[in-house]
Amino acid sequence: MSLKQFVVIGLGRFGSSIAQTLYSLGNEVLAIDTDEETVQSISNSVTHAVQADATDEATLRSLGIRNFDVAVVTIGSDIQSSIMITLLCKELGVKYVIAKAHNEMHAKVLYKIGADRVVFPERDMGVRVAHNLCSSNILDYIELSPDYSIMEIEAISEWEGKSLRELSMRSKYGINVMAIKRNNDINISPTAEDVIKHGDVLVVIGGTEELKVLEHTK
Amino acid sequence: MSLKQFVVIGLGRFGSSIAQTLYSLGNEVLAIDTDEETVQSISNSVTHAVQADATDEATLRSLGIRNFDVAVVTIGSDIQSSIMITLLCKELGVKYVIAKAHNEMHAKVLYKIGADRVVFPERDMGVRVAHNLCSSNILDYIELSPDYSIMEIEAISEWEGKSLRELSMRSKYGINVMAIKRNNDINISPTAEDVIKHGDVLVVIGGTEELKVLEHTK
Ligand SMILES: Nc1ncnc2c1ncn2[C@@H]1O[C@H](COP(=O)(O)OP(=O)(O)OP(=O)(O)O)[C@@H](O)[C@H]1O
Ligand SMILES: Nc1ncnc2c1ncn2[C@@H]1O[C@H](COP(=O)(O)OP(=O)(O)OP(=O)(O)O)[C@@H](O)[C@H]1O
Ligand SMILES: [Ca+2]
Ligand SMILES: [Ca+2]
Ligand SMILES: [Ca+2]
Ligand SMILES: [Ca+2]
Repeated sequence: MSLKQFVVIGLGRFGSSIAQTLYSLGNEVLAIDTDEETVQSISNSVTHAVQADATDEATLRSLGIRNFDVAVVTIGSDIQSSIMITLLCKELGVKYVIAKAHNEMHAKVLYKIGADRVVFPERDMGVRVAHNLCSSNILDYIELSPDYSIMEIEAISEWEGKSLRELSMRSKYGINVMAIKRNNDINISPTAEDVIKHGDVLVVIGGTEELKVLEHTK
Repeated sequence: MSLKQFVVIGLGRFGSSIAQTLYSLGNEVLAIDTDEETVQSISNSVTHAVQADATDEATLRSLGIRNFDVAVVTIGSDIQSSIMITLLCKELGVKYVIAKAHNEMHAKVLYKIGADRVVFPERDMGVRVAHNLCSSNILDYIELSPDYSIMEIEAISEWEGKSLRELSMRSKYGINVMAIKRNNDINISPTAEDVIKHGDVLVVIGGTEELKVLEHTK
């Protein structure tokens, strides 16, 4: 993986997490915030941290913003600043600008002025957590399409002691078991003869409707 | 799935997303916020929406909080209120209380006073988005363990026109291709003879280190 240059503007909870993760993955990261204390506390976990108001064009120019590959604008509450900064980044020549939106209206404006991607971190995480609360044995999932998903699912007690053949998820529901996690081991080629034990976690792929039969409410 | 009764306290971006998603999944949802306007705007997408200060014990009692299966406390900025409300919910007998934390210290206190689960939505989403920005062909992933992952990955141009056998991901790297998405179709039993086309998305499982060979920076 080649290194890239990122500038993260706004170091709230979302912005600082992005900045630190990008840096830990080996990228060059410039972190900007108006708040001196916030800048201080992140300074050791990014390449450069600068206290500055990013709505000021001269400041952005002097920081060499146009040389960055990606700008991440993560100001949530001050919608006006978020829009101004996104516009400035695009005008100054940043190739890819990703911005956090407070609501749909904000997102619409961000796209109009040239944002390449708009994210809703709180909303997206709310959807994930809600699904997770409803089906306690689903640990994680990927929605492959509106109809198909992969789920990481805790085995329920009814399955214990039964082989995959006996459970006949495949023949009955068209669900494939792709992996079985047991303690710290993972079997990524389970066979029909594998028997489910207490505490096993199954990784399954199948139709979203069919997978619902595996969901059990707490 | 049986219906459950949820109370969501604090209707910021995260809280309102949880409340609406839980309701859309068929659960009974009581939504509480001090802000009248916020309560108004969510009232049609939850079972009940009430304007109230949840730090007030008498108010919580009169709302019958003890009858709820799950309380979700999603006040991020006012740490003191978040702690008080979490404590009250547990004391009043809510079986499962999940709370949003502003930082590590806040999380520690929440666990100490009895929270069953603490979440950091902005931080977790920051980690996801950062990974996503670094490896543009990875669309989603599940970390099965520190060593194993499932990834949903866009085919890079070098793979186009080659069969899975020719790409020999399995024999060379121990990576299994579990599914191929093409337009709106999903093939969940790909064979060695399947040929990758432009625009295909592969769902792969394997060692995290081995999967890195599939990551390509934008
Ligand atoms: N003009 C600006 N230039 C630089 N930084 C700014 C500017 N305006 C606001 N910020 C900073 O952006 C950060 C995030 O903004 P804010 O707290 O409004 O977002 P948020 O959506 O509540 O964040 P989170 O939920 O991720 O914690 C703050 O640390 C704030 O100091
Ligand atoms: N004592 C209270 N009782 C009920 N609601 C409250 C109370 N205190 C705060 N709230 C509400 O909680 C909501 C979320 O709080 P806050 O905005 O501080 O969190 P946040 O972390 O910034 O949210 P998000 O990032 O999800 O938008 C607000 O709508 C606020 O009105
Ligand atoms: Ca904030
Ligand atoms: Ca937030
Ligand atoms: Ca807020
Ligand atoms: Ca996932």
